[in-house]
Amino acid sequence: MTRLRFFHSHGASLVSRRSVAPGSAPGALASVEGLPPPRIRVFFYNRAEVEERIIEDAAELADVVREGHVAWIDVQGLGDEQTLRTIAETFGVHPLALADVVHTGQRPKVEDYEDSLFVVTRMVTVTDGDEIMHEQVSVFLGKGFVLTFQERYGDCLDPLRERIRRGKGLVRTHGADFLACIILDAIVDGYFPILERMGERLEELEERVLANPERDTLGMIFHAKRDLMALRRAVWPQREAISSLLRDRHPLITRQVIPYLRDAHDHLVQLVDVLETYRELAGAFIDVYLSSVSNRTNEIMRVLTVVATIFIPLTFIAGVWGMNFDPDESPWNMPELRWALGYPLALALMAAVAAGLLTYFWRQGWLGASVSRRSARRES
Amino acid sequence: MTRLRFFHSHGASLVSRRSVAPGSAPGALASVEGLPPPRIRVFFYNRAEVEERIIEDAAELADVVREGHVAWIDVQGLGDEQTLRTIAETFGVHPLALADVVHTGQRPKVEDYEDSLFVVTRMVTVTDGDEIMHEQVSVFLGKGFVLTFQERYGDCLDPLRERIRRGKGLVRTHGADFLACIILDAIVDGYFPILERMGERLEELEERVLANPERDTLGMIFHAKRDLMALRRAVWPQREAISSLLRDRHPLITRQVIPYLRDAHDHLVQLVDVLETYRELAGAFIDVYLSSVSNRTNEIMRVLTVVATIFIPLTFIAGVWGMNFDPDESPWNMPELRWALGYPLALALMAAVAAGLLTYFWRQGWLGASVSRRSARRES
Amino acid sequence: MTRLRFFHSHGASLVSRRSVAPGSAPGALASVEGLPPPRIRVFFYNRAEVEERIIEDAAELADVVREGHVAWIDVQGLGDEQTLRTIAETFGVHPLALADVVHTGQRPKVEDYEDSLFVVTRMVTVTDGDEIMHEQVSVFLGKGFVLTFQERYGDCLDPLRERIRRGKGLVRTHGADFLACIILDAIVDGYFPILERMGERLEELEERVLANPERDTLGMIFHAKRDLMALRRAVWPQREAISSLLRDRHPLITRQVIPYLRDAHDHLVQLVDVLETYRELAGAFIDVYLSSVSNRTNEIMRVLTVVATIFIPLTFIAGVWGMNFDPDESPWNMPELRWALGYPLALALMAAVAAGLLTYFWRQGWLGASVSRRSARRES
Amino acid sequence: MTRLRFFHSHGASLVSRRSVAPGSAPGALASVEGLPPPRIRVFFYNRAEVEERIIEDAAELADVVREGHVAWIDVQGLGDEQTLRTIAETFGVHPLALADVVHTGQRPKVEDYEDSLFVVTRMVTVTDGDEIMHEQVSVFLGKGFVLTFQERYGDCLDPLRERIRRGKGLVRTHGADFLACIILDAIVDGYFPILERMGERLEELEERVLANPERDTLGMIFHAKRDLMALRRAVWPQREAISSLLRDRHPLITRQVIPYLRDAHDHLVQLVDVLETYRELAGAFIDVYLSSVSNRTNEIMRVLTVVATIFIPLTFIAGVWGMNFDPDESPWNMPELRWALGYPLALALMAAVAAGLLTYFWRQGWLGASVSRRSARRES
Amino acid sequence: MTRLRFFHSHGASLVSRRSVAPGSAPGALASVEGLPPPRIRVFFYNRAEVEERIIEDAAELADVVREGHVAWIDVQGLGDEQTLRTIAETFGVHPLALADVVHTGQRPKVEDYEDSLFVVTRMVTVTDGDEIMHEQVSVFLGKGFVLTFQERYGDCLDPLRERIRRGKGLVRTHGADFLACIILDAIVDGYFPILERMGERLEELEERVLANPERDTLGMIFHAKRDLMALRRAVWPQREAISSLLRDRHPLITRQVIPYLRDAHDHLVQLVDVLETYRELAGAFIDVYLSSVSNRTNEIMRVLTVVATIFIPLTFIAGVWGMNFDPDESPWNMPELRWALGYPLALALMAAVAAGLLTYFWRQGWLGASVSRRSARRES
Repeated sequence: MTRLRFFHSHGASLVSRRSVAPGSAPGALASVEGLPPPRIRVFFYNRAEVEERIIEDAAELADVVREGHVAWIDVQGLGDEQTLRTIAETFGVHPLALADVVHTGQRPKVEDYEDSLFVVTRMVTVTDGDEIMHEQVSVFLGKGFVLTFQERYGDCLDPLRERIRRGKGLVRTHGADFLACIILDAIVDGYFPILERMGERLEELEERVLANPERDTLGMIFHAKRDLMALRRAVWPQREAISSLLRDRHPLITRQVIPYLRDAHDHLVQLVDVLETYRELAGAFIDVYLSSVSNRTNEIMRVLTVVATIFIPLTFIAGVWGMNFDPDESPWNMPELRWALGYPLALALMAAVAAGLLTYFWRQGWLGASVSRRSARRES
Repeated sequence: MTRLRFFHSHGASLVSRRSVAPGSAPGALASVEGLPPPRIRVFFYNRAEVEERIIEDAAELADVVREGHVAWIDVQGLGDEQTLRTIAETFGVHPLALADVVHTGQRPKVEDYEDSLFVVTRMVTVTDGDEIMHEQVSVFLGKGFVLTFQERYGDCLDPLRERIRRGKGLVRTHGADFLACIILDAIVDGYFPILERMGERLEELEERVLANPERDTLGMIFHAKRDLMALRRAVWPQREAISSLLRDRHPLITRQVIPYLRDAHDHLVQLVDVLETYRELAGAFIDVYLSSVSNRTNEIMRVLTVVATIFIPLTFIAGVWGMNFDPDESPWNMPELRWALGYPLALALMAAVAAGLLTYFWRQGWLGASVSRRSARRES
Repeated sequence: MTRLRFFHSHGASLVSRRSVAPGSAPGALASVEGLPPPRIRVFFYNRAEVEERIIEDAAELADVVREGHVAWIDVQGLGDEQTLRTIAETFGVHPLALADVVHTGQRPKVEDYEDSLFVVTRMVTVTDGDEIMHEQVSVFLGKGFVLTFQERYGDCLDPLRERIRRGKGLVRTHGADFLACIILDAIVDGYFPILERMGERLEELEERVLANPERDTLGMIFHAKRDLMALRRAVWPQREAISSLLRDRHPLITRQVIPYLRDAHDHLVQLVDVLETYRELAGAFIDVYLSSVSNRTNEIMRVLTVVATIFIPLTFIAGVWGMNFDPDESPWNMPELRWALGYPLALALMAAVAAGLLTYFWRQGWLGASVSRRSARRES
Repeated sequence: MTRLRFFHSHGASLVSRRSVAPGSAPGALASVEGLPPPRIRVFFYNRAEVEERIIEDAAELADVVREGHVAWIDVQGLGDEQTLRTIAETFGVHPLALADVVHTGQRPKVEDYEDSLFVVTRMVTVTDGDEIMHEQVSVFLGKGFVLTFQERYGDCLDPLRERIRRGKGLVRTHGADFLACIILDAIVDGYFPILERMGERLEELEERVLANPERDTLGMIFHAKRDLMALRRAVWPQREAISSLLRDRHPLITRQVIPYLRDAHDHLVQLVDVLETYRELAGAFIDVYLSSVSNRTNEIMRVLTVVATIFIPLTFIAGVWGMNFDPDESPWNMPELRWALGYPLALALMAAVAAGLLTYFWRQGWLGASVSRRSARRES
Repeated sequence: MTRLRFFHSHGASLVSRRSVAPGSAPGALASVEGLPPPRIRVFFYNRAEVEERIIEDAAELADVVREGHVAWIDVQGLGDEQTLRTIAETFGVHPLALADVVHTGQRPKVEDYEDSLFVVTRMVTVTDGDEIMHEQVSVFLGKGFVLTFQERYGDCLDPLRERIRRGKGLVRTHGADFLACIILDAIVDGYFPILERMGERLEELEERVLANPERDTLGMIFHAKRDLMALRRAVWPQREAISSLLRDRHPLITRQVIPYLRDAHDHLVQLVDVLETYRELAGAFIDVYLSSVSNRTNEIMRVLTVVATIFIPLTFIAGVWGMNFDPDESPWNMPELRWALGYPLALALMAAVAAGLLTYFWRQGWLGASVSRRSARRES
């Protein structure tokens, strides 16, 4: 049972909390307290060389973008407004875009700020406690640089960093647009293992719901449904966003990168497809559950009805001869009590009534409960 | 319980009442009786200075629009037709648009009257009694001025007025289009706290519906659903309206304002997204509720069936030996009543029947009610 | 109860009956028997003057259209084929359009016959018996004239006629296109009071379905749903039709008329919106009804189970000591019958069993029915 | 009851059976065995004259198409491959189109083969046994000729043939495109009487489902739903097909024919509309049925609960005083049996318990079953 | 029963498993272990001649494409990465496309790599064990060659290979585009027999669900639904893919091939149509099942209620006269026990009560169960 429980995402992920007071100026930043302070890591690379730097002071970023290199400014943690503002100014990030970075819980989207592209996306990871964590990743693609912001430390991009360091794969041979594209692709790839586990969870649920639906099965179905809703809310708009990127080609995105972007888009389409199938499945589970419970109630009622309907008349008959009318007073008063075969005849009458009722129930097919049950077990 | 109740919006908000008699000329105004009389407040400002005036007589508005200033004519209360007509004439408001202003309950929309833009929008506020109030706000954007009409006094725009007075933010440095845009944005922002509380309400409902659905839970689910329908009817068309503004750029809207309008649009998309998720959730609640009630009926029936099915045959057996057939009359008449071990054997028979039935029920899994119940509690 | 019943539209309105035999030539007219004979009324007017004439012979219509005047030929009743054909020829109505006029039950639509526009629309009125009557109104807009056909006498256009006679409003100052437009607008306005009453009906139903669903509530919900379906089938295509008129501007429609047409379109959009909300509401009612009935069955079963489960074992116990095993025969036979405290102990045993079961039920929360019921009442 | 049954279309109509083995070359023809052999009838006509010929040998068709005449080659029965191939070659029918003719069960569609138009449509007729028969009609429109193929003999086009023979209506004055168009229109018109009967059937079902749902009502609803699905599958693609004909005007279709094609399209739109309404209605019936059954179960349970809950405690009380504890042994043993008023007091106690329970049930409203039932009858 | 079971596709087919670790470079190939090693078969043909070769070493493929011939390189089995890479390089397959080939479980799609077209499609076959097997087939169309990859050995293309060998049909007279097109068509045709069997399965289910729904019927409906979901996920995107091929004509596809491609598209549209109908049907089955079970519970309850409601009061009456109040003590104590006609009167009272209750139930229509049941049987 516990195996099914570990997988719940927070209810909170269905509600996007915006902490800015209504009526504040657009572009105002919510309080960033409680979030971890930003850690800034910069990669510069080209085909020939790669350099990696941890930056303490955001002011050092001024000279990061150099001709002939790609720079990846990788900011993890949003807990210091001043640092964020400095970075934003350095790379020409629009105040509204910066507000979107800080107000996590944004809907994934692409925005075109002419000389840069701003992509909001949502990364999922599974925690040690086996919960699905949703985290907003904001990606700015500018001329020669990629700037990414994450809510928390740690992500699914480490294999990518390793590839940059070692010059593996194609990443070092392409520009910033390729880097942005494979960052997006890596985030999208992170959904697959989660969907696979979701699929296992649904298969387990399917077995339960068909074979032996219990009270807690309903809660499990519902939680699965909610997790799917949360995943869908993350995946759908990402698909739309990448799709609009492919449709309205931005000058920052070069032609060689298009197949890779299309690949990411394909994966998103596939995710959407699987999610829709899962949703339909989870929706069917509730119907099946309800039918299954009704079915069982029916079986229980059948047992009650058969037993009660047989014994209640018999008890009545016994009750009649349990009455104390006095046979001494009159020959009309319960003369059968004194018949020599009174008792055997009474028992025979009871047996006849019971046999009649059993025949009726057998004809109605109400005695077959255990048979159909057994076959149901064989079936599953 | 009361915590859940405070939050209902009026049923009336689902029905838009148009008080004009059918057949009257288009542009005729409904009676405005019962509405508060208009209060007119005017702001003139530019980068350098700001002036605020309360206007008693609508005729004073003639010279309000001046070169180099932005004028915001802020009308609260619609209770005087003559005043409204004077304002409309002063600012060139089309009679049909004025009719839309007065006939509150309009669907949010944007209309393009060439030299002006007319936006009908819907503001939500939470009253002291914790009800959601829907109020229509009509915004006219003309050259150099913004004219807003509200049904009642008081709104969520006070922080914006304060920013104008103090010259905070960007508002004083931009034109009338920016003012209109941030008015819209402020109205949109007003939905977020309401959705957040709606989210809490749904989380509370979710717990109830899974753990312990009672009769009144159904009413709560239904009321939540209705509130969501009312919110959706307010938000959807606003999204469409702003979206059409972005698509068909009006000459009154300058290029610098577009990102801010897009920001408002993004928020509306997010609201729509959250509302759809909530609706799906509320829809699932009813299914879960029904399943849950069926489940319980099933548990109740199981208890009845187990108890009745065990004791009804036993009672019958007892009834048989309670019959008064006279053993003196014949050796066939209930000889067992005189057996030395008659009574113990009878009790043993009863115990055997009970044990047999219990075994049957245990095999059917019908005795596990309390166990699964307990695990259900642990689960939630 | 009767208050809810008056409002049903005929089932017939869901089925469009076409009386022409399949296989007849396109444009053939169905028998017009049973329909009232046409009454023709003509208005000629311009800014300066107005003339109203009742026309007996359709041949008089030949010279009705005059330069500088707007002519409104208002035909009520379709019961004479020859008259209709004469009118059609006089005003150049295409035979297929005439067939649509006669075969009432058409889907509302706009057709463009180059030199004229043909609009089929559907008027609703509430009869004295409080039923919704659907009636087809066909509007031809030609150069300088408007020709309207109605199925029956009497309509919601009298206030408009009065405005023409008295020169009130804008109607006399505009052309035939404006006349056609405000005829459409008046027909659309006729839906609002009906929707308002529908809204009241739904509110009443909502109360019933939540508080005290009875058998006839189901029929009421269903009838409301059907009425909404009929209204929707009338409103949706009108919206589409007017929308296509706005999109593909016809030369007969001048620019000044567009805002009025847009106003009618806005009203239709609003009607559609309200109808969709009502449909969703009525749909939810059935779910709530079902849940509510299940809920009640549950409560009833709980009472039965509690009572039966307590008393059936007690009755069994009483039955045991009602057996007639003879204590004189053997000390094993019901010795307790002769114990000094036999009876009190038996009663004590029964009380203990009852108390145990009551405790069990109380722990299960099955004794709280009346409490939750009372709180449900307070809630609603 | 039987009146409702006659109307079922075959289950088979939901499944399109393609008898060609997978993997055969495209354009290969399925075996045509079992189908009736083709009967070929040709009409040549123009404004002045008409000639009708029955053709035995397909080779005679070579000179059928003549300048200044319209030729209608009307093939009924598909049971001879050689004949079909000869016809196809004579009129330049593409092999893939011929395959579609033979593999009946095609989805209605329009295909443009440059010098000819190929329309697959579906005709419905009601058999003597009152079943809906679906039949594929393939229409080729070429220059100066129309070629139609039907699966079986007999159709709804006889009135059209008669009109051609007698020169009634417009058919003789127009070209082949007009002929094709009115053939389509006649096929579409054939749906209306069927929908009308469907409407009557649904009205009858509505009455049943609300007033007195029985076990077989469920089957009837389901069969109605299936028939509607079959009709919808026939009508929807026809609408799409005609709609695409109207959108992408083919050179073979002249301008005068467009209004007639638009008329057929309007009828299809209306059919779709009515079918959607019927589907929604039939969908609602299942919900109402389920609610209605639940409702009845509830009423039945209420009766059981009231009766059992009153009499089970009473029976227990009677059982207590039916115990055989011996009052002679001890004054504690059932002394009430010897009280002078023991029996009347016992009866009074029973009456009091019964009265208390009745009061409780009356307060719960559980005794009103027959009342609400009666009002339900009055309602319907 | 077993006849229905054979047909399940794997649950796995609803989940697409991607074995590449998230974060690996795009284009990286998953481990291909466990898959069968590739078998390569090449056909070269033109109108005049045909040659078939089994290729052991992928390097031999270098000179396969020759002017004036069509080459079909048919690769079955994906179990050797090196071979696959060699083939990909030889024919200019993009690394991302190769990744899609290996990562089976792709969504069917068309991708345009300028000088080649890449189509991912999904073939279904029925195994000997009567399970539906889904298999990914990847088709590359280049200039003068077609390259196909399949997961496993064996497919539904053998009749096509035979046609190539024997020069039957049109395949040898057309180019590579025609070959690709009829490969797609053959794959699509493979769905028809499966849908036909699905249709039979649904018809069988329909009978069961209406006539005699048992516990395992629910599982069968659910499995049918899941199989339909899996088929739909395969068919829908194929339709989209072919549709986009038809819309955006690729230079590799010549004009003569278009009708054949359109034919395949038509078949896919038909498949989608049938699948949608089946889904709707399967969806209705669950509703009908639920209603049917409720119906039966209702019938069972009716029997219980009738029997219990009649006999429980009778038993009570018998119990009253079974009490042991002592008539010797007082004339008030059960004097009726000593009446001469006490017993017959008691029996008469019981009969009267039973008759009264029976009359009540008969009026309620609760005694008609067996009648309606019988008519239900006649109906089906």
